Amino acid sequence: MDYNIIRVARVTMNVTDLNAAKDFYVNALGFIETESTNEYMALRGLEEHVHHSLLLRKADKPGVHALGYKVWEESDLEKLEQFFQTRGSRTAWLEKGAQPGVGRALRAEDVSGIPVEFFAEMDGAERCLQKYDLYRGARVQRIDHVNCMVPDVEGAVKFYTEELGFRVSEYTATEEDRTWAAWLHRKPTVHDVAFMNGEGPRLHHVGFWLSDPMSLIHCCDVMASMGYADNIERGPGRHGLSNAFFLYVRDPDGNRIELYNGDYLTSDPDFKPVKWDINDPRRQTFWGHKAPDSWFNEAVSFLDIETGAEVAKKQPLLAQRKPDFVT
Amino acid sequence: MDYNIIRVARVTMNVTDLNAAKDFYVNALGFIETESTNEYMALRGLEEHVHHSLLLRKADKPGVHALGYKVWEESDLEKLEQFFQTRGSRTAWLEKGAQPGVGRALRAEDVSGIPVEFFAEMDGAERCLQKYDLYRGARVQRIDHVNCMVPDVEGAVKFYTEELGFRVSEYTATEEDRTWAAWLHRKPTVHDVAFMNGEGPRLHHVGFWLSDPMSLIHCCDVMASMGYADNIERGPGRHGLSNAFFLYVRDPDGNRIELYNGDYLTSDPDFKPVKWDINDPRRQTFWGHKAPDSWFNEAVSFLDIETGAEVAKKQPLLAQRKPDFVT
Amino acid sequence: MDYNIIRVARVTMNVTDLNAAKDFYVNALGFIETESTNEYMALRGLEEHVHHSLLLRKADKPGVHALGYKVWEESDLEKLEQFFQTRGSRTAWLEKGAQPGVGRALRAEDVSGIPVEFFAEMDGAERCLQKYDLYRGARVQRIDHVNCMVPDVEGAVKFYTEELGFRVSEYTATEEDRTWAAWLHRKPTVHDVAFMNGEGPRLHHVGFWLSDPMSLIHCCDVMASMGYADNIERGPGRHGLSNAFFLYVRDPDGNRIELYNGDYLTSDPDFKPVKWDINDPRRQTFWGHKAPDSWFNEAVSFLDIETGAEVAKKQPLLAQRKPDFVT
Amino acid sequence: MDYNIIRVARVTMNVTDLNAAKDFYVNALGFIETESTNEYMALRGLEEHVHHSLLLRKADKPGVHALGYKVWEESDLEKLEQFFQTRGSRTAWLEKGAQPGVGRALRAEDVSGIPVEFFAEMDGAERCLQKYDLYRGARVQRIDHVNCMVPDVEGAVKFYTEELGFRVSEYTATEEDRTWAAWLHRKPTVHDVAFMNGEGPRLHHVGFWLSDPMSLIHCCDVMASMGYADNIERGPGRHGLSNAFFLYVRDPDGNRIELYNGDYLTSDPDFKPVKWDINDPRRQTFWGHKAPDSWFNEAVSFLDIETGAEVAKKQPLLAQRKPDFVT
Repeated sequence: MDYNIIRVARVTMNVTDLNAAKDFYVNALGFIETESTNEYMALRGLEEHVHHSLLLRKADKPGVHALGYKVWEESDLEKLEQFFQTRGSRTAWLEKGAQPGVGRALRAEDVSGIPVEFFAEMDGAERCLQKYDLYRGARVQRIDHVNCMVPDVEGAVKFYTEELGFRVSEYTATEEDRTWAAWLHRKPTVHDVAFMNGEGPRLHHVGFWLSDPMSLIHCCDVMASMGYADNIERGPGRHGLSNAFFLYVRDPDGNRIELYNGDYLTSDPDFKPVKWDINDPRRQTFWGHKAPDSWFNEAVSFLDIETGAEVAKKQPLLAQRKPDFVT
Repeated sequence: MDYNIIRVARVTMNVTDLNAAKDFYVNALGFIETESTNEYMALRGLEEHVHHSLLLRKADKPGVHALGYKVWEESDLEKLEQFFQTRGSRTAWLEKGAQPGVGRALRAEDVSGIPVEFFAEMDGAERCLQKYDLYRGARVQRIDHVNCMVPDVEGAVKFYTEELGFRVSEYTATEEDRTWAAWLHRKPTVHDVAFMNGEGPRLHHVGFWLSDPMSLIHCCDVMASMGYADNIERGPGRHGLSNAFFLYVRDPDGNRIELYNGDYLTSDPDFKPVKWDINDPRRQTFWGHKAPDSWFNEAVSFLDIETGAEVAKKQPLLAQRKPDFVT
Repeated sequence: MDYNIIRVARVTMNVTDLNAAKDFYVNALGFIETESTNEYMALRGLEEHVHHSLLLRKADKPGVHALGYKVWEESDLEKLEQFFQTRGSRTAWLEKGAQPGVGRALRAEDVSGIPVEFFAEMDGAERCLQKYDLYRGARVQRIDHVNCMVPDVEGAVKFYTEELGFRVSEYTATEEDRTWAAWLHRKPTVHDVAFMNGEGPRLHHVGFWLSDPMSLIHCCDVMASMGYADNIERGPGRHGLSNAFFLYVRDPDGNRIELYNGDYLTSDPDFKPVKWDINDPRRQTFWGHKAPDSWFNEAVSFLDIETGAEVAKKQPLLAQRKPDFVT
Repeated sequence: MDYNIIRVARVTMNVTDLNAAKDFYVNALGFIETESTNEYMALRGLEEHVHHSLLLRKADKPGVHALGYKVWEESDLEKLEQFFQTRGSRTAWLEKGAQPGVGRALRAEDVSGIPVEFFAEMDGAERCLQKYDLYRGARVQRIDHVNCMVPDVEGAVKFYTEELGFRVSEYTATEEDRTWAAWLHRKPTVHDVAFMNGEGPRLHHVGFWLSDPMSLIHCCDVMASMGYADNIERGPGRHGLSNAFFLYVRDPDGNRIELYNGDYLTSDPDFKPVKWDINDPRRQTFWGHKAPDSWFNEAVSFLDIETGAEVAKKQPLLAQRKPDFVT
């Protein structure tokens, strides 16, 4: 069964201060603000033709409401409802208008307990791709992927590939050949979603695509100029895995954003997933730098699709929490 | 009917001197040479995991044997054979091994008389994406698209969209709202194939993707250093249409190659094709530069799928051959 | 005699509309505005620690008041006054405060009739080098050089090298080995001032240094977005001569600005000036592009140091006005 | 007294394996090899018009023979000899030909015991600035500066500014307003030589200028591809001090090389030295990253100008060895 999932398309998450978030996301990172109220702010990248890819909701503390995937057409939503109900997942509908700019949406829980959302329709918005005079900071172009820590990566991979039609581009294996992390895609890039072994489910980061490597360097300079040097957590560097030129930054509430350039085309069914040894230093950082502990330990809780309470977390199945070379 | 065409994947064309071609494509542009004989040279980009995307055949004069598209699986080829035969097109099979590195391939003629080829299988090759010490010249990453001059662009667009499942990302319209040029894709980039109004069918250029804009600038410098300044035909510049940062170069036989960086994601079915007025100067070159006449007038003949003779050309349906602002 | 000239430091020239100039220089090119009135606007680059490097004066038509050179100390000005008077040049003093931000200044006429100015003191201003959040457009860093058309290049070179202590870094020679153009420096870059054979004296352009090549590419995009595509006259390209990565733009009044990155260190007395044949296509544009006729024909008049009237122009000594390959 | 020192121009130091050094400096970093024997290798950057800027001598262990400064003319050498002898420093002459490519050279000891060398003449070599097809790795352009750890920074600054005519561009002060580090220049860039408080005298690093920031990023990728990831010690990052975009790498013998782009013009006598608080995190790394301990602790010994034995080291006058924020 093919549910015609096109790509990861939006994330809804909390921030505690919308003004602080605006300064960070719009002025420092270069997002375009589509719309704001006292309750939320809708942000899109420069090339995005839709209302938003990041919806920030004002709340008392961080938390992720849903990871949203765009499907081809409305009827795919009914098929997905049936699929999730057959599996015993709770589901919930958000009618058109319940969320700013978003059409009818189906929420459900994936195999790891992550709140996922599917929708076919979103309001349009002006594409600013060629409004270069609006380019600021990192010049964020579009949402690229989400990355989650889950207790059972192999279970998550099986669910997304066998049930939802994702394909694996690259993965990390332990010495016992267990899958420690995996990168999965629907659109033919390295990923729409990745899973890493860890206490979870938690959202590790949301990745946004940049047009070129110099925009990432410039963003470091802009962040430092604006007083955000402490919000740069890791990078700039090159991931061996995915070949991404990356920068990880933390927003004022600690939500982690990856600025990302590199990637490659994964369209071909005979492309063989790239396997990496977890203890190969070039996997994490091609140039050999170690990631800070915070990058391995800190992530954001998901919120229940009905109650809004934090989704319960479990300890990971695999013992190793980070590579050997990170001491 | 969906024939599961994934993407444009290879071009087979003639050169008159394989050594001259090697210096140009490998040393100046940075292709990886997979294999060479006295009769052909197979080239791939740095990220390509397959035998080649450009097959150059030694011949007395230029000519394009086929534009090759990769399909999902072997059974798609039979469906395509039936489709083309139903339409009255001649078809021809090249068995596995008949072409270096390529599995069984179906050749046919598209609605404009262009020799097209479909195949599901190609030999693998080492991906050099992370062999940065091999990076040279433009650091060509992968094939991106082909661009053809045809007499009836609207007919070609109808054929590719209604019969073969391509979608239009952008198009150019005349004052009478006739489609003068169109960019069509299967993979979610701006295009796999584009058609422009002109005497044809002829191959205008093959486009290759670069990882970043500075590689394009460096390629200009390398070409000039090596004595290839006269082979730079147009650019560097920015296309309004497609937002590509481009450079057009001519190989020693006059075959035109576009080096290309920019693009954007076209995955969404509700993405509305971008319409450009042919006489909008920013369409052709966002920065306002005029293209040289050679760019509008010169292109390479296609060769018959059975006889190898040049495919007959027709005059274009639309009178205007180039934009008003190019005098 | 050494007059301790440090570098070219400022240009004072007319514009007809200060608001139009502000949009162009500040919003599109990225200059910092130090100060403005109804009569003038003082602009500086991001790294400049002084009041301005470009002073735009409101006037009815274009014209250049003076090319300003910074000297080591006040006493150098008296020595220069004596030098110019000995040579029969008129001189004029502008007391401190007569020009915004500038200390006492000596004006005189060089051998070609160009109004030159010398000063030791200028008011300080905040350096914005590390205020990356202020970076816009081309991110102009500092003034680099001026380029003038003069009727007698060899006479100008003799005057600047033998009398004022400049050194030649590169020059262009005709077939008869006459110097057609020359690049001269005091600071150890390729030039502070260049002279080209042509009707003159006229100011051809003022060159500003950029921090990196991508800022130049971004400026093209920003200019096009803002409607300034027609103000891009030439480039981006690479000069063979000087190795500059260049862009020539025209301000709303037609004053020509070069955005410039590349250069090299010319500090050593045993560095031999690089000689170029005027008809070597790589001299003008390393990548082989032709310059438009406007680039060879159009330049701005200088104004008399006393009367403010246009300085009389003469026809050039050498017949050839532009390279052979520019038809 | 002005000794007409132009710039730092060469460093002579030991490596234990010339083949390993060649792979590192030529293949990975992109130096041009001028000449090699079993005993030494002479390297230059792409824009350098002279025999070498780095002379590597085969030896049993690391050690730095001399930091070499170019002076304007031969007679400056006699003046320098007299100066050093008056101060009680030993001096030694190396006649022309005693060192490959170098004319007559005077060696002496500076106030910190560092072996310095002065020369006016060096053999010429082909400039490869526009041989872009030879560009590899970091595309090293030219020598920029040397950086030394010395026990008494204030003494060194006094010596170089008051006796040898250097000027300070930036400096780091402790809470007690003692100078902890200083950057000094003769050519109008941020520095020719810098001194940092530490056990010494020792050579901390030699800095080489790159043409653009992307060359530095590419060098990281090339080094990782070639197995040199462990040789990347620090960066890429931005120094607050000097505004340099930097990368510190260690050669196979541990000699530290800085790849450097950024800088600014320091020609003006009224440019006020920039003062930084040692504990301002933005001083060391504008983006907030900490430097590794090895960067603060490890440096290379100098060798006696007569005996070749290691120059004795002293403990630093100021207690603080590194910034507070580096724990």
